[in-house]
Amino acid sequence: MANILAINAGSSSLKFQLLKMPEEEVIAKGLIERIGLSDPIFTMTTESGRTQLIEQVENHTQAVKLLIRQLLEKNVIYSLEDIQGVGHRVVHGGEVYSDSVLITDEVLNTLDELSELAPLHNPANITGIREVAKELPHVPAVAVFDTAFHQTMPESSYLYSIPYDYYKKYGIRKYGFHGTSHKYVAYRAAKMLNRPIETTRFISCHLGNGASIAAIHRGKSIDTSMGFTPLAGVTMGTRSGNLDPALIPYLMEKTGKSAEGVLDILNKKSGMLGVSGFSSDLRDIVTEASKGNDRAQLALDVFANRIHKYIGSYAARMNGVDAIIFTAGIGENSSVIREKVLSGLQFMGVYMDSDLNKILGKETFINYPHSPVKVIVIPTNEEIMIARDTMRLAEL
Amino acid sequence: MANILAINAGSSSLKFQLLKMPEEEVIAKGLIERIGLSDPIFTMTTESGRTQLIEQVENHTQAVKLLIRQLLEKNVIYSLEDIQGVGHRVVHGGEVYSDSVLITDEVLNTLDELSELAPLHNPANITGIREVAKELPHVPAVAVFDTAFHQTMPESSYLYSIPYDYYKKYGIRKYGFHGTSHKYVAYRAAKMLNRPIETTRFISCHLGNGASIAAIHRGKSIDTSMGFTPLAGVTMGTRSGNLDPALIPYLMEKTGKSAEGVLDILNKKSGMLGVSGFSSDLRDIVTEASKGNDRAQLALDVFANRIHKYIGSYAARMNGVDAIIFTAGIGENSSVIREKVLSGLQFMGVYMDSDLNKILGKETFINYPHSPVKVIVIPTNEEIMIARDTMRLAEL
Repeated sequence: MANILAINAGSSSLKFQLLKMPEEEVIAKGLIERIGLSDPIFTMTTESGRTQLIEQVENHTQAVKLLIRQLLEKNVIYSLEDIQGVGHRVVHGGEVYSDSVLITDEVLNTLDELSELAPLHNPANITGIREVAKELPHVPAVAVFDTAFHQTMPESSYLYSIPYDYYKKYGIRKYGFHGTSHKYVAYRAAKMLNRPIETTRFISCHLGNGASIAAIHRGKSIDTSMGFTPLAGVTMGTRSGNLDPALIPYLMEKTGKSAEGVLDILNKKSGMLGVSGFSSDLRDIVTEASKGNDRAQLALDVFANRIHKYIGSYAARMNGVDAIIFTAGIGENSSVIREKVLSGLQFMGVYMDSDLNKILGKETFINYPHSPVKVIVIPTNEEIMIARDTMRLAEL
Repeated sequence: MANILAINAGSSSLKFQLLKMPEEEVIAKGLIERIGLSDPIFTMTTESGRTQLIEQVENHTQAVKLLIRQLLEKNVIYSLEDIQGVGHRVVHGGEVYSDSVLITDEVLNTLDELSELAPLHNPANITGIREVAKELPHVPAVAVFDTAFHQTMPESSYLYSIPYDYYKKYGIRKYGFHGTSHKYVAYRAAKMLNRPIETTRFISCHLGNGASIAAIHRGKSIDTSMGFTPLAGVTMGTRSGNLDPALIPYLMEKTGKSAEGVLDILNKKSGMLGVSGFSSDLRDIVTEASKGNDRAQLALDVFANRIHKYIGSYAARMNGVDAIIFTAGIGENSSVIREKVLSGLQFMGVYMDSDLNKILGKETFINYPHSPVKVIVIPTNEEIMIARDTMRLAEL
């Protein structure tokens, strides 16, 4: 029995959950937002209620101190000894980590080196690790990578069709992300189907503000839509997904922007925001589309079209599919998108039940009973995966 | 009855065919290579044999003069009046041309404007048109566009997930190429199946040194793998196909190249050449792979994998497919690639017959008789399409 603190440190935020293991019971969860900015907000939900504070938090050092203080003050824990392990979400594990890892100084050095591959994410993750270690120096910590689950992809999936030297010299390949989520839902789906995961072929659609699709064959990722970075693949809230590479020099010439400037547009002003022209939030877009806004409708069509095509291509990768899984904000909650994505897949045995599809936010099958391919909505839970891996690797 | 001269002018080459219509009989065909370079070569094949000359050809003016002189000298024609129409292949018709068009001064002006979208191809095509018009001023000429057939794509297929303004201001969208070839094979396939094309769903794989896949629903292109430029889509001989867009700034930083420099690598040093490290020619790669060269095998795997996935995604686009068509150099001649591309598609009703698959270079079904999805090899013939459209639009 152990309490595990799951940490997800971003550049200006720190998300946390304290889980009682092996019961997988959430004791507290919350986040600190706007670290280093004006009016930072601390939010925490426990059994006894919700706390919200606005307090000066200048950096991650202060954020971690605040978190620990609040856990003690609100009697979530009675002493620091009540935390037996910490699990950290780390975005990029490169080709080094195909599983989570117990953090040592050597691991920290490797993570520093890997920051080059994820300059926007890994440094914040590493800061989170270092700061928590200062407060909880004797508690084992584990890193859980977004990329690790996809390390089983074969070469023909992960290699780009560019000079092979670029792979060897610069590590340029498809890594894939959201791995912890894809893995979690795949294992849940196998359980719900009452089948050993080694006998299954799943397509997992993690659709949030970032979105990725994975082909999971016998429990292993064999392909995924994100690539070297999380910009690739399907249309997302603000990200473009895959493009004709020739567009980047063309846009540089037309807009006078640098390559980084164009990349910034592709990351932050594209996707459904770019197409709709007014929002990256699917809920806004669905609302406007229902009022007859053509560009909102177009954003929905484009978003659903790209996911629909990935499902076809990943079914081809596995010579069919046993279940299609929807997870994350949009995947769990948007019946509109699920219906659009799934319509016209009868040829491969997908028969969705529109009534069941209206059920939101809980684990449920949404296919007709006779449908050869099952369709399952599964709320994702990366924190449970982090806690499980922490238990396993810290040998708790 | 008319003789139609079909012209395909490149930056340093001029391909031609003289066809007797409506019989669609080839009277002469050939090409002039290395225009403006050292040792230009003129090659022509007629009923009476093959001519090859090395002769000074400094520009397209001289190339067209040489062609006309040879047609007369070799008695292919007896006077210029024996040519009743000229059809020109033009790469880019933008959003202006969804069909071939009779060339007028106004059309030429529009083609000039469209050169911005295809700076490597349209200017040479236009030069060809102008030079032939000087020699044959009274002969009607028609432009046949690589992009026209794909103009039926819906917005959700052709729009990129980038700011919508870039479409409106700069014309950035998916155009698609190889349209004349995709259209030709789709109509042939409908004939071979003895079905009205309006009842069919085809996936056409044009696999040459450039390669593109098209989803053709009821005779109309609804999606295709090439994009704003012919760099996009599947792995090709030397082209990368789709990439994570973030790779371009990353490669610029790593290699110190400009955006144009990186683009040049993606166009000329990538694809199967980049992966294999030694050749862009599929035949070399197949030979080396059969000798146990791992990188050659990898190039084959990557190439086939990308096409295989497009077939899945385009089947999803049409809720199934009636026939998969292979055409162009590799599509017509490589049983190895066809077998790799088609294996593992039984889930969607594709059953290829490995024995039939060995037949090369002629129209043939290569599926088992019971296969719900037919697989057809069809040698492409863009010149016949050019000649037909010339007949139709010049009202010959």
